[in-house]
Amino acid sequence: MKQYAQFSNIIDESIQNLEKVLYLQHPTNMYAPMGYILQLGGKRIRPLLVLIANDLYHQEPTKALNIALAVEVFHNFSLIHDDVLDNATMRRHKETVHTKWNNNIAILSGDGMLLKAFEMINASSINNKLDIYSAFIDMSLKVCEGQQLDMDFETLNQISVDDYINMITLKTATLIACSLQLGGICANASIQDQQLLYKFGKHIGIAFQIIDDMLDLYAQNNALGKEIGKDILENKKTILFAYALNKSKAIEKEMLLQLYSSKNTDSTTKLNTITNLYNNLNVKQEAVNLATQHTNIAFEALQLINTSAEKKQMLIEFAQSLIKRNF
Amino acid sequence: MKQYAQFSNIIDESIQNLEKVLYLQHPTNMYAPMGYILQLGGKRIRPLLVLIANDLYHQEPTKALNIALAVEVFHNFSLIHDDVLDNATMRRHKETVHTKWNNNIAILSGDGMLLKAFEMINASSINNKLDIYSAFIDMSLKVCEGQQLDMDFETLNQISVDDYINMITLKTATLIACSLQLGGICANASIQDQQLLYKFGKHIGIAFQIIDDMLDLYAQNNALGKEIGKDILENKKTILFAYALNKSKAIEKEMLLQLYSSKNTDSTTKLNTITNLYNNLNVKQEAVNLATQHTNIAFEALQLINTSAEKKQMLIEFAQSLIKRNF
Repeated sequence: MKQYAQFSNIIDESIQNLEKVLYLQHPTNMYAPMGYILQLGGKRIRPLLVLIANDLYHQEPTKALNIALAVEVFHNFSLIHDDVLDNATMRRHKETVHTKWNNNIAILSGDGMLLKAFEMINASSINNKLDIYSAFIDMSLKVCEGQQLDMDFETLNQISVDDYINMITLKTATLIACSLQLGGICANASIQDQQLLYKFGKHIGIAFQIIDDMLDLYAQNNALGKEIGKDILENKKTILFAYALNKSKAIEKEMLLQLYSSKNTDSTTKLNTITNLYNNLNVKQEAVNLATQHTNIAFEALQLINTSAEKKQMLIEFAQSLIKRNF
Repeated sequence: MKQYAQFSNIIDESIQNLEKVLYLQHPTNMYAPMGYILQLGGKRIRPLLVLIANDLYHQEPTKALNIALAVEVFHNFSLIHDDVLDNATMRRHKETVHTKWNNNIAILSGDGMLLKAFEMINASSINNKLDIYSAFIDMSLKVCEGQQLDMDFETLNQISVDDYINMITLKTATLIACSLQLGGICANASIQDQQLLYKFGKHIGIAFQIIDDMLDLYAQNNALGKEIGKDILENKKTILFAYALNKSKAIEKEMLLQLYSSKNTDSTTKLNTITNLYNNLNVKQEAVNLATQHTNIAFEALQLINTSAEKKQMLIEFAQSLIKRNF
């Protein structure tokens, strides 16, 4: 990310200012949680993608800054509500909003944060704001749909690989795609380039989520600092699960579903049994192949974008670095 | 409302169509609750106000219809989430969304419904959409702030009349005000008229809420079909409570607060004791006077609006009918 360090600094500084403003706004119980969740940090990949796409067309970062912040604010709205939905107590080693305050405050400050994102679009001075609204609204609804599908998956016994890809496309890849598209809109890129940026981001986002699912179990070293097999232990339905479900024979399938619904199985036994099944079915390789396919589609789209080879190369390197780590 | 029957029919028909579309959209668990809450009915006052304001300038209702629907969809988003916040099991004699489905679905379909309101703005073809977004975003944030203040009031022992008016202005009056303003924007009314429409709606909205609070205890007949004193029995802090708190001596104040926090007091005793206190302090008359003041401010603003005396008279009669019944 070195080449984009300047953008990261601008974003970090603006978010710090925003946190201060939010902590001072009334009613405190509605605004302080917004400041708090932003303060928990993160790599700010999404606003960075807005500024990067804007930069492909040699535009000043300040022009797209409000839109970049709106994207980060939206992302944090979704985190507040998702933590309520998932009943998650911790995020980035700190209490989640509903744990620190309560569910009601988390619901309402989440609503407010979603509206704050729109307020930031409203406050921006770019000349094609209607296109921004249009893309942003479309993205926001898709992200909610993805979250609903993810919730629906919890009680489904049959999930195809296509179902799974559709869910992560909506829940995760759409916001990556839209961030790049919004940067393109800010820079007055052609409609074709806006669509290519979206396509690039969408497939990079899908590849990212597949790799992230795969690394949960198959990380070579514990570089991510994550517990190995956490998704399995939490019964999270991943690309590995979807492949296993679809490649396994009836008896294995039954065992997998039984382990995913059982509360009595010992963790080590569960993890080992499922890992063995995944290994026998070679689902890791399937996942890697699928991620590669999506990465290739993304890079093909990028080649068609009307910008210099140098800028494209920077974006390719950035995307490659993203796929190997958490967003 | 007779003179506006045509507008009511257009709105009812459009909402019925919208319900059908929502019931068919996927994921069902996200969209069906939106169809369901709209189907519970209501007087559709807010979208009607959009069309009425638009009509002041002799504009066709179809022009403002999408914006009118967006307002109703927004209002229903707030009902879904408020019912979760208030833990309300019933609405219009039917189960609330979180009771019929569950809390997670209510949170997420509420989020989606808020975004659907924006999608309807996005889909409208009016030429000053940026002004619509701007007014709508400002209103939405204020409504959330009002809801937060109302929640904050639950644990506060000191609420001034001004605090209370500020809360209901944000929570209730802002959406009435904005509905009229949006109709004005749709009709290309002057900025001054847009502001006057907002002012009219705001003060009518405040008067409405004060009268509604007052009628909870002092309705002459049970025309509303509501239980008398429901607010008191539910410890809801109303304009009567705010006046009583600020007009009472220390010992009465302590009694009032004690009754509002006690779970052991018999309902009849509680209702009688508080009603006696309110009667002794003459809070009903204070509330009526305050509502009259706000109604007067509203009608003064209306007089300055650049439309015919006939249209003004229709709006005055409509507003008067509203103040005496539930929105």
